[in-house]
Amino acid sequence: MESSEKKIKVGITGASGHSGVELVKILSAHPMVELAKVTSRSLAGQAVVDSMPGLAHLLGADFKFSASDPKAQAEDADIDAWFLALPHGVAAEYAKELIAAGKTVIDLSADFRLGSLERYKEFYKADHPAPELLRMGRYVIPEILPPQRGDKLIACAGCYPTSIQIPLTPLYRAGLLSTEHVVIDSYSGVSGGGKKADLFYAYCERNESARGYGMPKHRHLSEIEEQLGIAAGREFFVQFNPHLAPMTRGISTTITVPAVAGASIEKLYDVWNKEYALRRFVRILPSGVFADTLLVNGTNRCDISAVHDSRTGNFVITSAIDNLVKGASGQAVQIMNILLGFDEACGLL
Amino acid sequence: MESSEKKIKVGITGASGHSGVELVKILSAHPMVELAKVTSRSLAGQAVVDSMPGLAHLLGADFKFSASDPKAQAEDADIDAWFLALPHGVAAEYAKELIAAGKTVIDLSADFRLGSLERYKEFYKADHPAPELLRMGRYVIPEILPPQRGDKLIACAGCYPTSIQIPLTPLYRAGLLSTEHVVIDSYSGVSGGGKKADLFYAYCERNESARGYGMPKHRHLSEIEEQLGIAAGREFFVQFNPHLAPMTRGISTTITVPAVAGASIEKLYDVWNKEYALRRFVRILPSGVFADTLLVNGTNRCDISAVHDSRTGNFVITSAIDNLVKGASGQAVQIMNILLGFDEACGLL
Amino acid sequence: MESSEKKIKVGITGASGHSGVELVKILSAHPMVELAKVTSRSLAGQAVVDSMPGLAHLLGADFKFSASDPKAQAEDADIDAWFLALPHGVAAEYAKELIAAGKTVIDLSADFRLGSLERYKEFYKADHPAPELLRMGRYVIPEILPPQRGDKLIACAGCYPTSIQIPLTPLYRAGLLSTEHVVIDSYSGVSGGGKKADLFYAYCERNESARGYGMPKHRHLSEIEEQLGIAAGREFFVQFNPHLAPMTRGISTTITVPAVAGASIEKLYDVWNKEYALRRFVRILPSGVFADTLLVNGTNRCDISAVHDSRTGNFVITSAIDNLVKGASGQAVQIMNILLGFDEACGLL
Amino acid sequence: MESSEKKIKVGITGASGHSGVELVKILSAHPMVELAKVTSRSLAGQAVVDSMPGLAHLLGADFKFSASDPKAQAEDADIDAWFLALPHGVAAEYAKELIAAGKTVIDLSADFRLGSLERYKEFYKADHPAPELLRMGRYVIPEILPPQRGDKLIACAGCYPTSIQIPLTPLYRAGLLSTEHVVIDSYSGVSGGGKKADLFYAYCERNESARGYGMPKHRHLSEIEEQLGIAAGREFFVQFNPHLAPMTRGISTTITVPAVAGASIEKLYDVWNKEYALRRFVRILPSGVFADTLLVNGTNRCDISAVHDSRTGNFVITSAIDNLVKGASGQAVQIMNILLGFDEACGLL
Repeated sequence: MESSEKKIKVGITGASGHSGVELVKILSAHPMVELAKVTSRSLAGQAVVDSMPGLAHLLGADFKFSASDPKAQAEDADIDAWFLALPHGVAAEYAKELIAAGKTVIDLSADFRLGSLERYKEFYKADHPAPELLRMGRYVIPEILPPQRGDKLIACAGCYPTSIQIPLTPLYRAGLLSTEHVVIDSYSGVSGGGKKADLFYAYCERNESARGYGMPKHRHLSEIEEQLGIAAGREFFVQFNPHLAPMTRGISTTITVPAVAGASIEKLYDVWNKEYALRRFVRILPSGVFADTLLVNGTNRCDISAVHDSRTGNFVITSAIDNLVKGASGQAVQIMNILLGFDEACGLL
Repeated sequence: MESSEKKIKVGITGASGHSGVELVKILSAHPMVELAKVTSRSLAGQAVVDSMPGLAHLLGADFKFSASDPKAQAEDADIDAWFLALPHGVAAEYAKELIAAGKTVIDLSADFRLGSLERYKEFYKADHPAPELLRMGRYVIPEILPPQRGDKLIACAGCYPTSIQIPLTPLYRAGLLSTEHVVIDSYSGVSGGGKKADLFYAYCERNESARGYGMPKHRHLSEIEEQLGIAAGREFFVQFNPHLAPMTRGISTTITVPAVAGASIEKLYDVWNKEYALRRFVRILPSGVFADTLLVNGTNRCDISAVHDSRTGNFVITSAIDNLVKGASGQAVQIMNILLGFDEACGLL
Repeated sequence: MESSEKKIKVGITGASGHSGVELVKILSAHPMVELAKVTSRSLAGQAVVDSMPGLAHLLGADFKFSASDPKAQAEDADIDAWFLALPHGVAAEYAKELIAAGKTVIDLSADFRLGSLERYKEFYKADHPAPELLRMGRYVIPEILPPQRGDKLIACAGCYPTSIQIPLTPLYRAGLLSTEHVVIDSYSGVSGGGKKADLFYAYCERNESARGYGMPKHRHLSEIEEQLGIAAGREFFVQFNPHLAPMTRGISTTITVPAVAGASIEKLYDVWNKEYALRRFVRILPSGVFADTLLVNGTNRCDISAVHDSRTGNFVITSAIDNLVKGASGQAVQIMNILLGFDEACGLL
Repeated sequence: MESSEKKIKVGITGASGHSGVELVKILSAHPMVELAKVTSRSLAGQAVVDSMPGLAHLLGADFKFSASDPKAQAEDADIDAWFLALPHGVAAEYAKELIAAGKTVIDLSADFRLGSLERYKEFYKADHPAPELLRMGRYVIPEILPPQRGDKLIACAGCYPTSIQIPLTPLYRAGLLSTEHVVIDSYSGVSGGGKKADLFYAYCERNESARGYGMPKHRHLSEIEEQLGIAAGREFFVQFNPHLAPMTRGISTTITVPAVAGASIEKLYDVWNKEYALRRFVRILPSGVFADTLLVNGTNRCDISAVHDSRTGNFVITSAIDNLVKGASGQAVQIMNILLGFDEACGLL
């Protein structure tokens, strides 16, 4: 990591998980910002590279974890923007202090994704840790829910929700899709489960294993239903079926949704083309070609496609993202780029 | 392979694919039958073990492929039952001769799975090669559509259809499920695509790749809709979304289906328990535990489970099978066992 | 599991690891013995199937873990033979009691593999827990170091050592190989590392990872050098380089060893053919064909092959086994079969 | 791909393989050069992105394959440097024309890697296609065999040879290693075998498969022995045992080599530290930590480590690279960076 006086300095709190490492990787090679601090409660004082040996060519041996401390970080005049790669609940504690000190906060946790305190409690089984900040937070997927000038608290969308809203949101806004009988099946790579010493995530338990989990009420459902409801102009329920597949990265999402009367595959593609034809990080595949996680692996791209089944009247829509990039750290950096006035693709593949 | 005067002799036609090898593996270790012949058009005269080196401990070096020849096989007095592990279209040509000669035919292809010639033509893009045999053929999944004494022509159910009908058929028969808005997402291991020198199936194209294919009208849909229609007492359409996951074996199926008024998760499990509690090859998982391909890998078992979502009114049902065993060769041997009067599990794991 | 008065009853102590599950799988389907007890310290009273859901079709729900207790097991008149699938050190504690009570003990741990107490201490960093039993124990690989009538304490060879000694032992006995500059590189599937909630064994840490570990003095080296020394008639050192590859099962071993003057590839194959041509569980591949873990996956077979390099004067020898079958549980059952007078392949693939 | 008047323009001939795609990926995102042409015999006129859908965010739809034509490319005044990602034999045909026209040629094939025509014929079974160019060609691994100002024809080292020479060359130059009894075992990801519609490379054939191939005389051996001979100051033979592991990318190499009298692990690390401490793309791991392909995946780095075994007198050295990056396309771009006067890491991770 080069040190440069002129570069904007950013920090990361909580970088021990998969998306934390991905964030360090992207930011330490970013041409316009300097990753000046990475904080950790348990690793303070240790070289960051020791925890992320795969990044050895990017990280100097003298770049050490600072202590995690919301107050100290809030007072750190050096750092303008903080990424929070923390568990929900904990992230809000940092956000409170950092926001109070005028910092920009880009939060990868779920703490500010929901507009409703009841929904937060229902899905996260706890009172919201910072309800006073809820109104400040902006839920962002740059292509459809962009950040605004002056935003100070960004809630990055979750991984599954990103793979779902990029194809669906413009279609609901355009009134092409039914809000009944919506079924979403997603398959995630194992990194989606986090970096844990847990037998369930052991190689021999996950290799050759494809299976569902967390149905019917996975936490991400709260965010999916809230946002699709806004797009459609009315609240509705969806069936969300998350699964794990034996691969490290990627989310493959397949959505079955009835077309409304008058909707057609041509109209669907028209909407997508208007919305996304110029967006670098969305690729619209021809009808009949299906999104593939391998092809977005390591990129900040979301591939989307759709077919219409005249027999059932349904659209079947597929999408693919890299859960750690477009589903987490890449999208967070894309948002930072926009907030700081850079090209949104700066430092991203 | 031991030779024994008393054992019933069986043969396989077409054993170069994944399910052919699995069939040779199971039958050559079967305690009650002798795998006496394996025929091949292109490999006649070569040692079988040379094509299946993984079975070297089961196959003698002098066990050679015989020539594939429907007439000669029909006249072979030695062999009582033939397994056809051939492409559709080709299988029927063999079946005609073998049936005419009074042999028992257990067909793993799609040729006799459908009752309707129109449906065959619609999905397989060809006229049915042996319409005169259609009435003789019996479509079998032993647990729900068992073979009958005297059956001579068995159409083994396809892999996806097996993973779908085992959970659904008893529930449709019991009237618990809606016939509208049925959505089935399945993820298959790569062996489901066959054994082909095709770049699409290359390791580096499929590793880390999860993706859909063949939507919205995969061939297996014909069989799924025909059979579920019979179970429900009325024809209906389903949305079937097949995918590939980066693993060799296994099918993970997740079905979203509206419950009819009055249906409940308790009633659903009651039906399953009545149907399957005593069946060796179906395991009913508790509600909230989800079927996992790894746990059925190498076995002839189908694991099933369900949850009810009170928000949407849907049941979400998961199942898992090994596509090459319960989805193909294991089920074929299970059927043979029943036809020959053996324990259905004989020679199977 | 069928209960049968006439079958010999066997038990397993310690079945929570990968080889324990494999042992339960093989023994519960074995046609000649009854798996009557599986003991566990922590799981006593729980259904065995709950820990091994993949074996649901083999295990009745009422088959429960008994308490692990060396004395009680020694007094259990029902069980004639015990398999110990325990860590080294612990296994010996059970062996003491069981041997004193006249039981047959088939130990999968390292406790009785070494003839030398010093070597045990050097490699296992502890005093031997039962030196008085050392002379009773017989180190067994059935094809080259068979059990003898009346043996009561069997030390099953380790996984790596099995893959190494099957090709090398007959060649050292025949005097074809140098004892200098022997280099052995082995790649093991991840199950070789055991079933642990350890971040190192997490899916995302091992997928796409090939790497060495434990060099230059892996514990199995003690057993390899002791046994090869006996075969060669003189002690010598070997370089043993163990690695992990991203797969669940299998050991691929490649051995580089100088040929002695007068040795040739023909003589090497002559020795192997004499030794192994009639052995069901060894397959001799032609020179130039290399052993492949996939082809022995799930079997009790060891595939071997060799080439001679006239430029260097070395033989390069490859072997492949399934580490959980021929490298552990399958070989243990093969040994039991021999001790009990059954066909050695009984119940094995 | 941005078009920029000021950027140096480069071209690629033959980009259908894995390393061709990797080259397009790196060069199309490179900040200092413009990838102006990609030529192909069979795909001329088609959009490049159609063959490389994974790079859709980097490649404009109007960027098309040009026709491959050595003469036309030689006359193309626009392009200053050409990368050849072609089979050996074919590459030389292009090199002849391009060199004659004064272009810079960075050849990823084996055509100019060997100094000896006899060796070429021995290992590649054909007369060298352009012996007159052999003297012009420079064999390059930037860290140990750097390009020189004015070089026009670069032979990029092979993938295995790179993983072997980076650790060994400085040690041979320093006289620490014996030239006898050198044994090199390498495990490569499947992409090393190329992108072919070949059953051997099918997913179900390579998954769960670890195995050797091409022993004892793999083509890369020619290059390894020639270069190590130069480093050591005398010709010698090595045993090179290449293998495939079930992963897409990566080479894990383990080298067993006797230390000369007086050599020690400290001296070995001293040599490495002097040579590599400041090199961005070599990471020296502490003795006892072993190189891991996962940690270099997607990077241009080579990780190296060593232990000394006092029992055998051998050093055991491990290294890891990404075969498609440091083993091919990344290293080619690193060389281009040096030739063009950029930072060697420009555009590389």
